[in-house]
Amino acid sequence: MMEFKKSFASDNCATAHPRVMERLFAVNAGHALSYGDDAYTQMVQKKLCELFGGACEAHFVFNGSGANAVCLNAMCPTWGGIICTELAHINCDETGAVEHLTGGKLYALRGNAKNKLTVEEMEPLLKKIGSQHASQPKVISITQCTETGTVYKVEEVRAIADFAHANGMLLHMDGARFANAVAALGCTPAALTRLAGVDALSFGLSKNGGMFGEAVVCFKDLNHMPYVRKSCTQLISKMRFIAAQFDVMLEDNLWLRCAAHANAMAKRLSEGICTVEGAFCAAPTEANEVFVVLPNHIIEPLRAFMDFHDADFGMDTVRLVASHDTTEAEVDAFIAKARELVAANA
Amino acid sequence: MMEFKKSFASDNCATAHPRVMERLFAVNAGHALSYGDDAYTQMVQKKLCELFGGACEAHFVFNGSGANAVCLNAMCPTWGGIICTELAHINCDETGAVEHLTGGKLYALRGNAKNKLTVEEMEPLLKKIGSQHASQPKVISITQCTETGTVYKVEEVRAIADFAHANGMLLHMDGARFANAVAALGCTPAALTRLAGVDALSFGLSKNGGMFGEAVVCFKDLNHMPYVRKSCTQLISKMRFIAAQFDVMLEDNLWLRCAAHANAMAKRLSEGICTVEGAFCAAPTEANEVFVVLPNHIIEPLRAFMDFHDADFGMDTVRLVASHDTTEAEVDAFIAKARELVAANA
Amino acid sequence: MMEFKKSFASDNCATAHPRVMERLFAVNAGHALSYGDDAYTQMVQKKLCELFGGACEAHFVFNGSGANAVCLNAMCPTWGGIICTELAHINCDETGAVEHLTGGKLYALRGNAKNKLTVEEMEPLLKKIGSQHASQPKVISITQCTETGTVYKVEEVRAIADFAHANGMLLHMDGARFANAVAALGCTPAALTRLAGVDALSFGLSKNGGMFGEAVVCFKDLNHMPYVRKSCTQLISKMRFIAAQFDVMLEDNLWLRCAAHANAMAKRLSEGICTVEGAFCAAPTEANEVFVVLPNHIIEPLRAFMDFHDADFGMDTVRLVASHDTTEAEVDAFIAKARELVAANA
Amino acid sequence: MMEFKKSFASDNCATAHPRVMERLFAVNAGHALSYGDDAYTQMVQKKLCELFGGACEAHFVFNGSGANAVCLNAMCPTWGGIICTELAHINCDETGAVEHLTGGKLYALRGNAKNKLTVEEMEPLLKKIGSQHASQPKVISITQCTETGTVYKVEEVRAIADFAHANGMLLHMDGARFANAVAALGCTPAALTRLAGVDALSFGLSKNGGMFGEAVVCFKDLNHMPYVRKSCTQLISKMRFIAAQFDVMLEDNLWLRCAAHANAMAKRLSEGICTVEGAFCAAPTEANEVFVVLPNHIIEPLRAFMDFHDADFGMDTVRLVASHDTTEAEVDAFIAKARELVAANA
Repeated sequence: MMEFKKSFASDNCATAHPRVMERLFAVNAGHALSYGDDAYTQMVQKKLCELFGGACEAHFVFNGSGANAVCLNAMCPTWGGIICTELAHINCDETGAVEHLTGGKLYALRGNAKNKLTVEEMEPLLKKIGSQHASQPKVISITQCTETGTVYKVEEVRAIADFAHANGMLLHMDGARFANAVAALGCTPAALTRLAGVDALSFGLSKNGGMFGEAVVCFKDLNHMPYVRKSCTQLISKMRFIAAQFDVMLEDNLWLRCAAHANAMAKRLSEGICTVEGAFCAAPTEANEVFVVLPNHIIEPLRAFMDFHDADFGMDTVRLVASHDTTEAEVDAFIAKARELVAANA
Repeated sequence: MMEFKKSFASDNCATAHPRVMERLFAVNAGHALSYGDDAYTQMVQKKLCELFGGACEAHFVFNGSGANAVCLNAMCPTWGGIICTELAHINCDETGAVEHLTGGKLYALRGNAKNKLTVEEMEPLLKKIGSQHASQPKVISITQCTETGTVYKVEEVRAIADFAHANGMLLHMDGARFANAVAALGCTPAALTRLAGVDALSFGLSKNGGMFGEAVVCFKDLNHMPYVRKSCTQLISKMRFIAAQFDVMLEDNLWLRCAAHANAMAKRLSEGICTVEGAFCAAPTEANEVFVVLPNHIIEPLRAFMDFHDADFGMDTVRLVASHDTTEAEVDAFIAKARELVAANA
Repeated sequence: MMEFKKSFASDNCATAHPRVMERLFAVNAGHALSYGDDAYTQMVQKKLCELFGGACEAHFVFNGSGANAVCLNAMCPTWGGIICTELAHINCDETGAVEHLTGGKLYALRGNAKNKLTVEEMEPLLKKIGSQHASQPKVISITQCTETGTVYKVEEVRAIADFAHANGMLLHMDGARFANAVAALGCTPAALTRLAGVDALSFGLSKNGGMFGEAVVCFKDLNHMPYVRKSCTQLISKMRFIAAQFDVMLEDNLWLRCAAHANAMAKRLSEGICTVEGAFCAAPTEANEVFVVLPNHIIEPLRAFMDFHDADFGMDTVRLVASHDTTEAEVDAFIAKARELVAANA
Repeated sequence: MMEFKKSFASDNCATAHPRVMERLFAVNAGHALSYGDDAYTQMVQKKLCELFGGACEAHFVFNGSGANAVCLNAMCPTWGGIICTELAHINCDETGAVEHLTGGKLYALRGNAKNKLTVEEMEPLLKKIGSQHASQPKVISITQCTETGTVYKVEEVRAIADFAHANGMLLHMDGARFANAVAALGCTPAALTRLAGVDALSFGLSKNGGMFGEAVVCFKDLNHMPYVRKSCTQLISKMRFIAAQFDVMLEDNLWLRCAAHANAMAKRLSEGICTVEGAFCAAPTEANEVFVVLPNHIIEPLRAFMDFHDADFGMDTVRLVASHDTTEAEVDAFIAKARELVAANA
């Protein structure tokens, strides 16, 4: 058996939560109709909808790229455009899956200093509406938390939603780290989505203690979603095994507690690492990701001590991601190691 | 907690094998690099390649539709055609995912009495080669076992492969039930694929005791497969959890023993049910699927006793699928119930 | 300069009508706004709509494949299916353009003895509606005249339209030879389309004396058509040169008179050729295409005398297509030559 | 009949050249095999190849968007990326046709001050090569002349081609105004393409005195181009009518003389307009497009005198395009009118 070391590389390097594993065991007790036709899956979908106060539809899919592609195919025709930021996961990290599966175009904007879309930046795109030479803006897609670890506030989401709807567009939220955002803001899931005007949400689980599987949650009528899901290869046969993960996560708010813990560990990490001589934060730590500039000479020995990735931007900038299973001891040991490495070189 | 009853509805309604569950637990011990960058996944991929005698590449994906779409995108351009049977899963049961993700065309042929493609039936399509008005035949895709439960023999596969290669095409095998076919034929996996001329295989696991996850195995150089996989949304982040399932299945030939068991149960079921008055087999039982015509009046009460689906063809024809977890007792009870229902009505 | 010989090869081998050439000259007198923004094009589009009694929108495109792809993209999502016949041009002769540009699936049915779709044959496809595993039937596409030269009657079109609309589908007519059909039936263009329930028409011109260019005529609101047209590369810059062709063709019913002439020549050809010993018609001659079985030994010498193509079906079956510029003398000479060749061999 | 006024709106608002019209008449003398199977078309294709010194293949298509989409589909897989500038026609003005028809992704860079790609700006994209999360850079597409009227020099093209080939990419040139570039540089067509390393060229005709129709010229083996062309709906039936336009244009270098004339008229216009008080050039006039900032109050009355479009950038910046049929008198009258309008307001 291989050795699996803890790290700050990514929350998708983390374990599945022990209670997730237990529930997967529990539902493996007999046969269940496939493709979501079993009563258990349907019960969990309903439970998930209730998390948002009802008035929505939930569909399980395999992964975040799949959730995004399915949502966007359902909302954007081949002659449509999808507004996002340049750093958006759908623009940078999905090998063109969105263009491939929708046939549409990404309008990738620079975003503001916090890597967020703003109405101001999107407004010039309105002049494309009605021009037969331009992909028609049909969807705005925002990432929550963003790729640089910041969090859209409820009123920011609402402003974008209002702008979208006033101009014939829909609003998609790529919620790969939706739980971390909800935990950070202390609002309800409904307040951040349905009530703020989000039309479809990619609800992430894998980065928050799941094994695999995400949910597409539609607040607008998108009744063709099941066909879209299958035509994008995102329909699982043994769906109860995704349902089970959501089932347990929704009990006693486990999903939120996992996210809140990761956020707290990130905060501890952020605050601690910035006391190390020569280190400073490259971005605010609003959820579970820490972007920090480190003295160049400590980066590799520190990485050997506990793994992490470089950020996609900035010299000597690294990304440290805290997970549901990150411990205070790990955080403290990492900071101590950084301090030790700096001292050794002084 | 819901109740999960055993059934003959489909092998994808079955449980994950207990050893699969154990292994999933075992690999959940710490962090692992995501997207297949961890050493464990790479070790299992190598192990899987060794099953085929090496000289191949293995890539994990989520599901069968995904494996098929990824293989076919990698082998067929937007102006290409893919030859298959009318009943092929890629033609009937994937909501157009292959057309959607490849941009190409399906040439769906009637197939022979055993639902298999033959060189004779494909030959007329050769006249399309070189015509700018026709999608160029680029891939032949066969399903093993077929959708009616029959099994291509090694020499049949080789004849199709030779025909494909002689005419500038590649051969894809949709092996959703590949294990059942290997078990039925008693050959090696390599003999049925690489040595017979198959260029890419969708290697199924979900229907044979897996929880989720399949593998794409390339016998021809298809180095762009990782990009294709991501652009089709089929890249999992926590890949060790697919790797673990293959890992345990490849130990002491568990995958083959599961399939052989399912085949044996299907044979027992087939032989038994045909002794029931008024029942007769609608197709030969070559692997783990039984197609049987039942007296109309017993169908619903029998289904209530133990669930199954209607076949896609034939009046009063039902499909009974045996799984790795089907027991002799279940088979015998089902046959007894059928007999009892016939007798009650006599 | 090359020599251009007359032939029966196809109506798209024929000349552009002299009055088409004159009008092209006439509109080449100065500058005009491009992409259809000029007043002349808009006037002609209006004129074309009036041909159908108004209540429609007309959009010029380059060619028949383009018209079909644009119509079908506008009416069929990536998870949708398009019902047509196996011999349909969109299925056989467009190199998969429809699958490529829509992302959807073709449901190709055998058709009846006259190569027409019937409600009876389509009905079994209704069971796919609502199944997440199946491309959802969204469009029926019929070819008028059909690929074997037959003509849908008004009541046949209406029956299909009613069936389509009753089941949530739209009706597309591939009218590459729409003029020949209208001429053959003696009905109005509106009666055969808008009033019969057609939702979008590919209105052919190239095969009826045009140089290039077709029109998409929408009877249903398909306001996104201009975006679809451009995203499918079918927007011409100097649109007045398509408009001009329609303009002149619509004057004094030139388009219908061209088609009626071609039909009459085909009738003369059909009746004459069948009096040649050993020759007989392989299909009824309802418009401008003649399908005839010829004595094998006269085929090549006759082709050398005046060119034609083999039919896509049947031993020794050839297709003779009459055009707007076919003369009685040419028809009679051809028949005489056939007779002479048979006699020479007797 | 409508009135067609001369303008500076665009070179695609201009007439077809009189000799083009004559040649279209000439080839309308009889029948010709369709879809490029006629000897005449094949002769002209050969003639076009000879313009580039042979060693290439020419394929006629309908329009510039079509030429671009066909070239790029032939060179870029669904998991590939195409590097271009933000202002590139394929990025801004084709309603997403490239994404739609290739399934791939555009990497749109800012470009340098002259709206040209440079190796320096593209280099950071190289780090995407080999990452399964990123669309693999497969093609660089440059526009010649650029969308702001500048011209890539031969050595600039060669530097980009070398960079492309050194990194596993191909080079596409969108030559909607290729003739104007060749005329401006005074080089041979081969020097600017084949010999500089261009792999495929969209060779424009419509903007240089054609009626419709462009050519795709492949310097690299792209034998599948005919299938790509049809599957993208870009195959014309009566191809001789495109061939005829190229035929006459290639005689006595008519194509180059048309372009040189347009360039000269643009130079006269540029030099003249800049002598008007308050007007100044917004970009260098290197070919047939003039970008000029005008005193705000004269813009609309001047436009009423002779039509033109606003530029896509800059306050009070307009674009004046000279064509093959622009006369010195028109240029001088326009300048005089501008001067008069300024004076009237002084």
